[in-house]
Amino acid sequence: MAEMYFEDFYLGQVILSAGSAKVSAEEIKEFAAKYDPQPFHLDEAAGEGSFFKGLAASGWLTAAIVMRLRVESIKVAGGMIGAGVEEMRWTLPVRPGDSIRTEIEVVGVRPSSSRPEYGLVTTTTLAYNQHDQVVLRSTVNFLAPLRRKA
Amino acid sequence: MAEMYFEDFYLGQVILSAGSAKVSAEEIKEFAAKYDPQPFHLDEAAGEGSFFKGLAASGWLTAAIVMRLRVESIKVAGGMIGAGVEEMRWTLPVRPGDSIRTEIEVVGVRPSSSRPEYGLVTTTTLAYNQHDQVVLRSTVNFLAPLRRKA
Repeated sequence: MAEMYFEDFYLGQVILSAGSAKVSAEEIKEFAAKYDPQPFHLDEAAGEGSFFKGLAASGWLTAAIVMRLRVESIKVAGGMIGAGVEEMRWTLPVRPGDSIRTEIEVVGVRPSSSRPEYGLVTTTTLAYNQHDQVVLRSTVNFLAPLRRKA
Repeated sequence: MAEMYFEDFYLGQVILSAGSAKVSAEEIKEFAAKYDPQPFHLDEAAGEGSFFKGLAASGWLTAAIVMRLRVESIKVAGGMIGAGVEEMRWTLPVRPGDSIRTEIEVVGVRPSSSRPEYGLVTTTTLAYNQHDQVVLRSTVNFLAPLRRKA
């Protein structure tokens, strides 16, 4: 995949993740133990008695998996530099065994006012499970370097 | 710490993290390898030549650490159920050796329209490093159960 510069992004551009990410109970529990140690993310039985009615991934694990899929599907020259989240929603729990894929759409492109050598790309991401249900949606900005230096 | 219900939250309430989270180069690289495999998050030398001018934590690691500090400092009855991110900004890179603490302010409390047994609490979080510089700020919603059932 060729490295992408600001000039390569355009409104309405859609980028699908090359593959999908399988989520295991082990990964859900390991992430939770480190970053979101709540019973429904750590233990099947505790999950059953909770809001989630079963073991569910931390929303921040889902967000991290979505980041990996984004990095794998969009190769920005010099790397994808995050420039903020405009909104993120967890629309359904992610369960052990789920496979997550992403569909990214470019919804904004503008030069950066503070960094003339970069442009700001705004994207909406829909993350789907294997049943084609949306589990996360977000609007996130990143910087991409200009091919023609300002 | 007593478990908190919706009625325990009020506008202007400020909750400081009990402790702080020390971030190591090892944790930065381990998280990056799994969820944000970009050179400036994986390798000191690659970081030097990058936008970040040194090894920097993935913004999603910072967000995950902030989640742990939130969970440790606010014990919601039944667990903290995330209900979306309104905004998140990474204002400074997080570096190996940094210590992160959080200051959370309640900026919204309202009954949930879709779930009558819960209320929606909106909080802004400022995450500081050991130099009292803000490294992340966010506005995040969570659900808290009503003590008096609707």
